[in-house]
Amino acid sequence: MRAEIVGVGTELLLGQIANTNAQKISSELAAIGVDVLWHSVVGDNLERIVSVLGQARGRADAIVVTGGLGPTPDDITSEAVSRLLDRRLRRDERLAQVIRQKFAKMKRAMPEANLKQADLPDGAVPIESEGTAPGYYIDAGNTVIFVLPGVPWEMEAMLEKTVVPVLAARSGAATTRSREVVVIGLGESSTHEAIKDLVEAQTNPTIAYRAGAGRVRVRVTAKAEDRAAAEVLIAPVEAEIRSRLGDHALSPEATSLLEAVSITLRRRGETVAVAESLTGGRIAAELSEQAGSSDFFSGSLVCYTTASKAAVALVPEELLERFGPVSEEVAGALAAGAAARFDAALGIGATGVAGPGPHDGQPAGTICVGATYRSAVITRRLSGYGRRDNVMAMAVTAALDLGRRALSE
Amino acid sequence: MRAEIVGVGTELLLGQIANTNAQKISSELAAIGVDVLWHSVVGDNLERIVSVLGQARGRADAIVVTGGLGPTPDDITSEAVSRLLDRRLRRDERLAQVIRQKFAKMKRAMPEANLKQADLPDGAVPIESEGTAPGYYIDAGNTVIFVLPGVPWEMEAMLEKTVVPVLAARSGAATTRSREVVVIGLGESSTHEAIKDLVEAQTNPTIAYRAGAGRVRVRVTAKAEDRAAAEVLIAPVEAEIRSRLGDHALSPEATSLLEAVSITLRRRGETVAVAESLTGGRIAAELSEQAGSSDFFSGSLVCYTTASKAAVALVPEELLERFGPVSEEVAGALAAGAAARFDAALGIGATGVAGPGPHDGQPAGTICVGATYRSAVITRRLSGYGRRDNVMAMAVTAALDLGRRALSE
Repeated sequence: MRAEIVGVGTELLLGQIANTNAQKISSELAAIGVDVLWHSVVGDNLERIVSVLGQARGRADAIVVTGGLGPTPDDITSEAVSRLLDRRLRRDERLAQVIRQKFAKMKRAMPEANLKQADLPDGAVPIESEGTAPGYYIDAGNTVIFVLPGVPWEMEAMLEKTVVPVLAARSGAATTRSREVVVIGLGESSTHEAIKDLVEAQTNPTIAYRAGAGRVRVRVTAKAEDRAAAEVLIAPVEAEIRSRLGDHALSPEATSLLEAVSITLRRRGETVAVAESLTGGRIAAELSEQAGSSDFFSGSLVCYTTASKAAVALVPEELLERFGPVSEEVAGALAAGAAARFDAALGIGATGVAGPGPHDGQPAGTICVGATYRSAVITRRLSGYGRRDNVMAMAVTAALDLGRRALSE
Repeated sequence: MRAEIVGVGTELLLGQIANTNAQKISSELAAIGVDVLWHSVVGDNLERIVSVLGQARGRADAIVVTGGLGPTPDDITSEAVSRLLDRRLRRDERLAQVIRQKFAKMKRAMPEANLKQADLPDGAVPIESEGTAPGYYIDAGNTVIFVLPGVPWEMEAMLEKTVVPVLAARSGAATTRSREVVVIGLGESSTHEAIKDLVEAQTNPTIAYRAGAGRVRVRVTAKAEDRAAAEVLIAPVEAEIRSRLGDHALSPEATSLLEAVSITLRRRGETVAVAESLTGGRIAAELSEQAGSSDFFSGSLVCYTTASKAAVALVPEELLERFGPVSEEVAGALAAGAAARFDAALGIGATGVAGPGPHDGQPAGTICVGATYRSAVITRRLSGYGRRDNVMAMAVTAALDLGRRALSE
């Protein structure tokens, strides 16, 4: 089964938002063995939407359309589907009633325009929404078209509840499974040098890379009759890759650096605390991403000023004066201060210069990280590159990696 | 001038990353009046890349391709361009030398495969890189094709240095200008109800919406001969929208909530400090997004445990026991504790339940925010909805908005 994802919305073409819906849908469809071969994006223009949908219909067995289902006049996706398939739009009275009730429940007056969201092309099967825009799917010859709202959480609820089960049932037995080896501290080309003979010899599973923010993900993807058969194909290739990459590769139980740290902490019943300057809360944000993170994450001290590194994060004034706020010594002291303030077993510290200009006498890109576990302290200095957000992302990776290494020492 | 952006990479189709390159390019091209009308994404498959590029060539005057220029065997974009245009790939010796020198400078051995990055189709004009992958552009009949690396910061440097100037020079006089009115605390349909007669009456400028994370952006876009003429078209429409939306609209000098807060603080020579539980560092991350944010942002206490709310953020134990950690009272005390710890004029506090389950006796989606400025404290409770990240994003917006309101009282 070949699929295409079509995003509708001028806001995408103006660059106001990224097409994260296509990412989410792609990832869910890959997991059930549906090959997403194209993404397309088109603006709120009837003729061009019809044309892009027509082209998708010519090459894909399943189309997932997102966006353009709202109540405002620029929301015209259903009109385009109606024109493409030559099927009338008809008001679904049950959906109209659901929309009315939702507004009543929120104690808000319902603008009359919202009822337009209950108008579906003939033959469409409605998908109920947790928000106000209903979605639907419709069979059109050999192609099934899913039409979902553009608001990510509304779209995601429909994706899981309806799109994935319907497509899994229709796509037959073949399954695609992937396993990733996450590599920290080696670039993409050095990773490739280490395993290129494997990459070139493999057809099933295949091996691909994705680099960014100081890590490389090596993805091993197999196609087989079912999940177990795919995993049998993957296992020996993954083991060989791991043995070549040594401790640059995260342990197999962890699909991310966050997991590598959290699995160990949970197992030991311990927590981590952070004191971060350079990264401005981004280490904390990563540690609190998953539900239940309070099991292993106590908190973070975001100390953006030099004074607060001493007053809040307990860094000795003497260290700040002698080595400056951007130094390995201060990164280690930040880690220790965080552990002390939050009474945590693992402390992580990060300081540096995100750029674009130099700061505190250090060039842009300077990253100093520290980690303390029980009584041991380790620190590291590295040079980040690229824009401000890239330097920060590299620092988050370096800090969590040092935490991982502190836990395993 | 009509443009298409083509992303190449199976990692996009597998949903491993979002196509943020298309967003960045779209936004830069919109600013110089180039109409981006399509985005396409295709995997690392020669036949399909050639087909998607051929389709783009049939409908666009400019194509910007990103990705597939790396050193590994799945990087085949140049081969596809070569085949599409029937032009041979030839090694550019000067580029090969630059690549060798970059590795020498980093004191790393250069894998031989990296020289493949110096092979360009006949007639291509190279664009030098800050990384290792050179880009290029090439005229093909009436269409110009830019080929850029997929790594965002490398791509962005070439976009600014070459793509934007070349396209601005070729696209002639017409300019598109946009102004956004940022609306906080009104939904998309209520915003539309307030201004729908304007939306329906306008053709130039046009008015469009973008909703998410507790805010709606109303974008007014005009096309005209030059920037000044476009702004003359926009001004009266923007003024009318602002007068209807009242204090739900941010002041015109601010294009975001962050700016609304930071402009006032900078003007007064004051800073903000945060104590956040629910949002796990995301308020701090937003406040530290821009270079120079240490001018107005002192720091944040990310207090993920109840004990740390008292010990680190100075919330009185009595409040925690009497009202519970998720309460307006504690949100106000977090704000006050942050201001005290960092000696900041403005304090912001946020607590709540991100979900998916209930916590601390409160349902998922509960958001309590507080702000203290000089001696006044204001607090607010609201109900977020959707997934964990949406609840957090709504809380960030609500907290910064309360900070904005505290500053203006």
